[in-house]
Formats: sequence, C-alpha cells, structure tokens
Amino acid sequence: MGEFALIDRFFKDICPRAQALEHPQALGIGDDAALLAPVPAGHQLVVTTDTLVEGRHYWADVDPQALGHKVLAVNLSDLAAMGAQPWAFTLSVSLRSPRPQWLAAFVSGMSALAHEAQIALVGGDTVGLGTDAAGPESFTVTALGLVPIGKALRRDGLMPGDRLWVSGTLGDGQAAVAQRVFAEKLLWPRPRLALGQALRGLAHAAIDISDGLSSELGHMVRASQARALALGKPAGLYAEISLLSLTACLGPLVQAAITKGDLDPLEACRQAAASGDEYELLFAAPEAASAEIVRLGQSLGLPLTAIGRVCSRTEYSQAAEPLVWLDAQGRSLAPDLVPAAGFDHFSLQP
Amino acid sequence: MGEFALIDRFFKDICPRAQALEHPQALGIGDDAALLAPVPAGHQLVVTTDTLVEGRHYWADVDPQALGHKVLAVNLSDLAAMGAQPWAFTLSVSLRSPRPQWLAAFVSGMSALAHEAQIALVGGDTVGLGTDAAGPESFTVTALGLVPIGKALRRDGLMPGDRLWVSGTLGDGQAAVAQRVFAEKLLWPRPRLALGQALRGLAHAAIDISDGLSSELGHMVRASQARALALGKPAGLYAEISLLSLTACLGPLVQAAITKGDLDPLEACRQAAASGDEYELLFAAPEAASAEIVRLGQSLGLPLTAIGRVCSRTEYSQAAEPLVWLDAQGRSLAPDLVPAAGFDHFSLQP
Repeated sequence: MGEFALIDRFFKDICPRAQALEHPQALGIGDDAALLAPVPAGHQLVVTTDTLVEGRHYWADVDPQALGHKVLAVNLSDLAAMGAQPWAFTLSVSLRSPRPQWLAAFVSGMSALAHEAQIALVGGDTVGLGTDAAGPESFTVTALGLVPIGKALRRDGLMPGDRLWVSGTLGDGQAAVAQRVFAEKLLWPRPRLALGQALRGLAHAAIDISDGLSSELGHMVRASQARALALGKPAGLYAEISLLSLTACLGPLVQAAITKGDLDPLEACRQAAASGDEYELLFAAPEAASAEIVRLGQSLGLPLTAIGRVCSRTEYSQAAEPLVWLDAQGRSLAPDLVPAAGFDHFSLQP
Repeated sequence: MGEFALIDRFFKDICPRAQALEHPQALGIGDDAALLAPVPAGHQLVVTTDTLVEGRHYWADVDPQALGHKVLAVNLSDLAAMGAQPWAFTLSVSLRSPRPQWLAAFVSGMSALAHEAQIALVGGDTVGLGTDAAGPESFTVTALGLVPIGKALRRDGLMPGDRLWVSGTLGDGQAAVAQRVFAEKLLWPRPRLALGQALRGLAHAAIDISDGLSSELGHMVRASQARALALGKPAGLYAEISLLSLTACLGPLVQAAITKGDLDPLEACRQAAASGDEYELLFAAPEAASAEIVRLGQSLGLPLTAIGRVCSRTEYSQAAEPLVWLDAQGRSLAPDLVPAAGFDHFSLQP
C-alpha cells in the first residue's frame, strides 16, 4: 500500500463533521493544506504540539489503540489546562512500514477520542522510515483549541492566598513505568476538558501534570513571579504543600503497593509528586471558590483534592525555592525527603 | 543543558513580534499552549504540517542553517499553494543530543525565513532520543496561514480551457540528490508566498510541487474530476502537456548536464517532470488571464512558464489517464517515454 492509499484509507475520516470543518468554505485532508471554518466571534486560538517517540514515550509492543488515543490525549490535556475547547488537529506519522491492522487499531483509538472531544483531523504527513530502519517510530500531533478572548487559564496567575488543587489521582504513571505493568492512567489518559472549561472565571491559574506535580508547580510559581515582576507587583510567591496531603489522591497501583507493604506511604507521596505522564490538572483558585470547586468535582464525577496554598514572602528573591514541602507536623521537610522535580528528556539520557 | 534551558535559549525568539502574537491577550512559548491574537475579520485559517527525517529527507551532514530554513520553507510552500498569508507555526524537534552550535545555526536559518515571512513560532516540543540512539533525528512543523474566506486556491478547481503554468525552474531537486551535490534549490527552497497570494482571484487552482510535476498534476486532475462529479458537472477532464515545453524551465544543474553532453534534452525534461523537492507552484488560469500572469511574473522577478492546458473529454472515465504527454510533433508520447509519477515514501523503501 502506498503513502496516498494509506492516508486515504485510514486518516480521512477522523471526525470530519466537527465544527472546524462544518462550513461551505472548509476543506479537510486532501489539498496542500486544510481550510478551517471561520473562528467563532469573540474567540481566540489555542495551539499546542506534542511528539511521542517509540522507546522514549512508549514501548514498541504498546497496544496500538491505546497509543492512538494517547497521542491525541496528551495534546488535549494541554488544551484542557488552558480552559480551551478542542477544535482541529494535525497528525504526522513516521513508520517503518505501513501495517494495516496495526494502523486500523491506532486510528480507532484516536478516532474514538476525537469524536468524544469533537475535534477534527484536518491535516497530516506520513513518512516511511524503511522496513529495516533501526530508527524509532514517532507521532506528532498539533492541536488547535478555542477560548473566549482573554479567558484562557494561564500558568502565571497564582495569587497569595490561593488554594492549590489537583484533579484525579497521581503516582500511577511512574509506578506503571517502574513496574512495566498495564496502567489505565499511563495507557488511556483522560484529558480533563470539561474541568478545564468549567474552571474559566473560577481558577486563577492552571497547568497539566505531564512532567510531575513538583516540577509543574515550580513552573507555575516561577512564571507567576515573573509576571508579577513585569506588572510591578510584589513577586515573593511560593507554594506550600503538605506531602501527606497527597495520600488522598494516590492512584490504585500505588495504593495496592502500600497495602501489600511494598511501599511506605510517605515514599509513595514523594514518588507521586515526581511522577510524570499523569495528565491531571493542577490549578489555583481563591479560597472563596472552594465550595464551588468541590461541587464542580462532584458534578463531573472527578476527585478534586486540595493539596496546598500559595503564600507570599515579604521580599522577592530569585534564589528562594518556589516550593515549600511540609511534613505531617507542618514543619519544612528535610531536604533529602523533598520530591524530585520532574522529567527532562535531555538530562535523562538512556 | 536541559530541555527547558534549550527551549529558552534557542526557540523563544523566532519572530515573536509577528501579528499572531501582537495582541494583549496573546501568549507565545512558555505555557501549556500558545494563545494567538484573534483571527482578523473575514479570514479563515489554513493549516498544514510536514516532517523532515534525517536520511529520508536530508543527509546527516546537512548545513544546519539550510535545514532550519527548509523545515519551515516546505510548510510555507503549502501555505503559498493555497494563496495564504503566513500567521503562526509550531516546531517539534527530536534530537540525539542538544548541540548548541548546531542548534544556533539551525535556528538562525529558520529565524531568517520566519522574519521574512512574518510568521511567529508559538509552540514546540523537544525530544531527546539519547546520544547513542541509532534513530534518525526529525523535525515537524505545523504552519497556520490566513486567507480571506472563500478565496483560497484549491487543487480541485481546474476548468476546461485553462492554461497550466509553473513557477521557477524544475529538475534540480532530483539532479542534486542523484549527483549528491549542492543545489540552491534543494537546500534553500524559496516558498512562493507572494505569487500564491497574487494568484487569488486570478488562478482557478494551484498546488505545490513537492512530489514532482507529473504526480502533482495528476492529483489536480483527479481532484478536479471528483469535485466536478460531486457538483453534477461534466467531469471528463485531462491535462495536455508538451514534454519539450519543460525545456524552458529546466534548472541550472540540469542545463549544465545538457551542455556538458551528459544528458539528453528530452530525458532532462522527463526527469524534471518527475523531480520531487521542487517547491514551485503549478497553477491553472483561464486563457484570458495569460497577459496578466506574464506581467505578474515580471513584477515578482520570477519566471512563470506555460506548459500545457486543461482539456475535456466528452465522457468521464475513471480509467482514463489524467495526463496526456505530447512529443515535439504534438502526438501522444510513447508509453516508455512518459515521466514517472512522483515520490511515494512507502513505495520507495530503501
């Protein structure tokens, strides 16, 4: 099967009836580029891109249906973190060879999520690496979302007094990689789209946890400090988290390990705070919004756990740690117990 | 240097003052996703994506500055073929290791073209493949353009009687690959953005020649037939091209080979018709627009060559060849002389 037949057969029908292509002047896959419906009045575009590479982000024997889901899901998670509604996406595929059965499963996983999120595949590229290539296969999605102008959830909006929340559970991403076992969380991440959109106007800031809670919260604090400085406001922000508060949101794999006595609860919380590949939302909202956030979690059927708060120092210092971890007695955690700060592709060379 | 330092150092400043980010509610690289300025009234988005893979699309010893230019240029060429104005792009980079000097050169090539085209880099992803990975490095760009609603140049608008035109020169893409020599054409393709935008309202259809003239013209005819059928119009379209008409647009590498006696002129035209990696525009316009097109080419300083015309059969037949190649006497070319129909990644396994 040639490249064009492959595209025709598998990629032309991923959600072509979504809003982004439902317009007389819209045009999906098949020309030099796609033409989208005009952006609805009062909205702006949200753009993100993520690549998954065999051997780095997934194993070669991955369930192709789960992989098709995940390649799209990790991008939708970024849209969710901005409070955006999914709109359209492109997909670039580098394969050693076209494998019809494998591709059909990949597309079915991607297509199911695309229909659920009502996002249209509008363009793509396919590269044949060669059947005897050593090189890893890879998939890049670029996703476009819509948000009312000025209403996006940024990461740099933390305010002193904000409560910090996390959705769903943490820890199973890393636990699954370490144990090399199946994990719902790792293989079928659920982008928190409804939550993200509901948080517009309610949360001050949000981010998705792809590189670990500790790392992402550090990004939020530093970005918020930089923005406060740029606006001439006091910038001495930091986040205070009780490590044991994470007990309330440990994933089932981690809980099972604790129950079996394989894992100390405190160590489980440390690992959960460093675990990447989680795709939950971490967000900050004023104390006064807490009751509404609890109700929101109930109505979405999604656990939302308060894990800490945003505090201010009287003075800004670039050298100050953005996160203060507390032990069960409310004292600063010993340095050797502080969770590691996330995943960095180039510092973790194999 | 870690992933974030890499992004900070090299990718944050590729044309951040372009229109897509010049708005109080716009936000470039640094959050979960970018926020673009609202799309100007009366415009729609044009979206395309292309991946370049080491060993498939370029050699490992490529000039990184040229590669940075080319990764963006091949995407801008797709925008040009739609008559679109460049707006914003994302870049995903998979590298064995971060190499500061190499990356600085790569970014300088990309940045120069981005500034020229006034397109902002708004998002990206970086993947470390591992320093001892066998796997090829790769680069994926997704480019967004703008076009007045309904004014895009599609490939499926051919009309009987249209004259067919090609911009610039052909043949040097394939000649450079075959001879493994430097070619301006192969390393520094110039996306025909000004031409594409000027052709709005003048041309009936356009396509960019990334897979070879013969292949792309076949796509145009088949797409136009399908559209005519869908609209209930007569669909018996084909394109008539005189092979020797391509003599007028052979590239300098090909011309040099003819002059040296290494290449027969007819064979040179056949190769030029099959040569990929050309990034010229192939377009169709009514006969009455010919004088204006000649003037347009003069004002742009870009050769525009008439190479054939669109004809109609009385009956539509799916089996009929979409292209009829003519010899110097105006007779159908012998089948063994007809140019090959382009590049297909999966049919050309190494």
